Amino acid sequence: MGVIIINFKAYREGSGKQALKLAEIVEEVSSKVDDYIAVAPNFLDIPEIVSKFNVDVFAQHVDAVTFGSHTSRITAEVLKEKGAKGSLINHSERRLRLADIDFLVSKFKELSLTSVVCTNNVATTAAASALSPDYVAIEPPELIGSGIPVSKAEPEIVENSVKAAKDVNKEVMVLCGAGISKHEDYITALDLGADGVLLASGIVKAEDQKKALEELVGLR
Amino acid sequence: MGVIIINFKAYREGSGKQALKLAEIVEEVSSKVDDYIAVAPNFLDIPEIVSKFNVDVFAQHVDAVTFGSHTSRITAEVLKEKGAKGSLINHSERRLRLADIDFLVSKFKELSLTSVVCTNNVATTAAASALSPDYVAIEPPELIGSGIPVSKAEPEIVENSVKAAKDVNKEVMVLCGAGISKHEDYITALDLGADGVLLASGIVKAEDQKKALEELVGLR
Amino acid sequence: MGVIIINFKAYREGSGKQALKLAEIVEEVSSKVDDYIAVAPNFLDIPEIVSKFNVDVFAQHVDAVTFGSHTSRITAEVLKEKGAKGSLINHSERRLRLADIDFLVSKFKELSLTSVVCTNNVATTAAASALSPDYVAIEPPELIGSGIPVSKAEPEIVENSVKAAKDVNKEVMVLCGAGISKHEDYITALDLGADGVLLASGIVKAEDQKKALEELVGLR
Amino acid sequence: MGVIIINFKAYREGSGKQALKLAEIVEEVSSKVDDYIAVAPNFLDIPEIVSKFNVDVFAQHVDAVTFGSHTSRITAEVLKEKGAKGSLINHSERRLRLADIDFLVSKFKELSLTSVVCTNNVATTAAASALSPDYVAIEPPELIGSGIPVSKAEPEIVENSVKAAKDVNKEVMVLCGAGISKHEDYITALDLGADGVLLASGIVKAEDQKKALEELVGLR
Repeated sequence: MGVIIINFKAYREGSGKQALKLAEIVEEVSSKVDDYIAVAPNFLDIPEIVSKFNVDVFAQHVDAVTFGSHTSRITAEVLKEKGAKGSLINHSERRLRLADIDFLVSKFKELSLTSVVCTNNVATTAAASALSPDYVAIEPPELIGSGIPVSKAEPEIVENSVKAAKDVNKEVMVLCGAGISKHEDYITALDLGADGVLLASGIVKAEDQKKALEELVGLR
Repeated sequence: MGVIIINFKAYREGSGKQALKLAEIVEEVSSKVDDYIAVAPNFLDIPEIVSKFNVDVFAQHVDAVTFGSHTSRITAEVLKEKGAKGSLINHSERRLRLADIDFLVSKFKELSLTSVVCTNNVATTAAASALSPDYVAIEPPELIGSGIPVSKAEPEIVENSVKAAKDVNKEVMVLCGAGISKHEDYITALDLGADGVLLASGIVKAEDQKKALEELVGLR
Repeated sequence: MGVIIINFKAYREGSGKQALKLAEIVEEVSSKVDDYIAVAPNFLDIPEIVSKFNVDVFAQHVDAVTFGSHTSRITAEVLKEKGAKGSLINHSERRLRLADIDFLVSKFKELSLTSVVCTNNVATTAAASALSPDYVAIEPPELIGSGIPVSKAEPEIVENSVKAAKDVNKEVMVLCGAGISKHEDYITALDLGADGVLLASGIVKAEDQKKALEELVGLR
Repeated sequence: MGVIIINFKAYREGSGKQALKLAEIVEEVSSKVDDYIAVAPNFLDIPEIVSKFNVDVFAQHVDAVTFGSHTSRITAEVLKEKGAKGSLINHSERRLRLADIDFLVSKFKELSLTSVVCTNNVATTAAASALSPDYVAIEPPELIGSGIPVSKAEPEIVENSVKAAKDVNKEVMVLCGAGISKHEDYITALDLGADGVLLASGIVKAEDQKKALEELVGLR
């Protein structure tokens, strides 16, 4: 089956106590399926989720700096020490400069952290793939939070992104995102060649988060 | 006596296990003096320091957003829930837009968080004071990390900042920073009218952090 | 009468040949009234408007740098050399860091350029006023481009901004903006204590720009 | 022979009257050699240089926006209307987000403007090349302004960048930059496979700009 990364964003329903509750749901559902399900909470919630739950934890962003005089910045080294698995990089709500994406992807390799570089179209997916991250995650910005699944609305963008990414670097895995919440859309994404999905509101803002996640992975 | 806030920045010596060790030192030294000593570690180290040590914890920055679709951003609400006392705002290494400083100062008041707005000269100190934060912290950028104490090199900037801040809003407390590490410089800052100091490398990068802090507060 | 500054933004109707046409309209209307009417086109259109029309030209932004290795940045010195009168600073679509606003206001004084610092509420108006610019221009962001005039929708924000600005520095002149296009709203702004208005879409995107400007100043 | 683009940056020696003087030198030297020599002055100097001199003019940056409510932003459309040939994109002193580089490269194609995307190493050169700009210009940041020519100090970075760029897209032309000022270094760059060079201080800050440019192209 596929890869599922849930971005908690700065949603109230994915912050603080709610982040812990959602991480617990992910742990439980995860134990019943073969899919790999990871969570991406905000920095402040990462340590407690890492220590309490058996689930891989990603950051939503890391800063392109090394240790030093950089007030407020989060280094990949500390993220690693805190037990995170990796991080999203260049999310559409936190776009990075090309040189910084490259810096982070290289550093993640050294530290054995998993890099998930977000992109917005076929051309930027090819460009990101040239940097050899572990994953690229293509999310057409106009569909983010829309409830319209990219795998249904723009299947060709998924197929072409997979092709573009693998043409440049066949090791890179490809996620797709934006608007995905139903099992059918998830399966369609896999059928189109994606290795998995990146999602947020479909689960985090669902009235019943557990039910939403069970539906996504086909348990209901 | 005075207020001392120690900014751990992204220094290796103030990150991860080293952050915990330094927080423990602060707790211990703090118990022996009347000065108020608080720490400002990176986001990932905040929760563990809050739960393990009897010391007030500040963030180094908070984002000017409310709950929502803001990947990677840290809200004041979550910071509060995690037990932090407040945050630095507009540090010279993370300057903010004027409208965002105002947004954060207002929000901190609602949430009973302590706001420490950093400034770089007399004019910006007056401007920040007009927003009515709890503290303004004046740090001439050219002296940050220089080892040259602002209270000795530019006493008039401390005096004039205190005057400018209190002229605009007499409730605002004033810290000064940049280059301070010795007891004498700290006392001079208080004599010049400051309510305390904001410092970083003088303690965090000291060969013996405990000794450095004890010297700062006059225990040696 | 009052001060009117027209921000051409990056509107198609205020760019290139259209910028020249609009500047000509401003020159013509300006000659018939006692109001001071200035234009703020994009950088590329500034030199030609300065050389062809008898109208004061402001930039929409200047960078907080001095001459040096700053690719793409525009210095106040070059702006001055090109014949501009001054610049907007900190417009809501180009918010600046507090330290940079202060840097620019100081530099404008040295160069005898006119500084117009934009703000978003009463508190930031007081803060900006503490930096002693020539003008502060208060524009509630929620009304920008709304067609709802700030002088009618939130008269108290205009009055309170004028009071807050003058309390801090009685030399500072106050403009208000957002949603203003009719003569009545302009006059109301002046009656509320403002020295003038900053506007954009009301004139630039009007079907008949000349008619719109004539109406604004009461010629129709 | 090769391509030479001279970035005037915000250097005093390449601003205002000095920009005009330098553009005139470029026009004159250019007429004596087969090399293609273009200039990249700041926005305010572009219109006058375009109208007065027979030399191709590039901007140092363009904003990733279309016409609209974007105070201070420069659109590619206006740049085109003003007679510029193209623009640098993503210079190390004005790094852009990956999605914005892609936006600009696509837009430049539609408008028949020439895109020169700056990069900092082999990996980002490959990534930029995947976006199919007209040129990529590789400049190792540590050598910019150093006086140490990249073609001598790091010949392999030039060769590998050329190879990486052409592997991804064989149509893309490759410039190299950083530290180049002598004819020998320019020729070495061409020998290493580059199509030309991007330079700045070597010419703009030379004591005798004309002599420096003549030396670069081998006229002395």
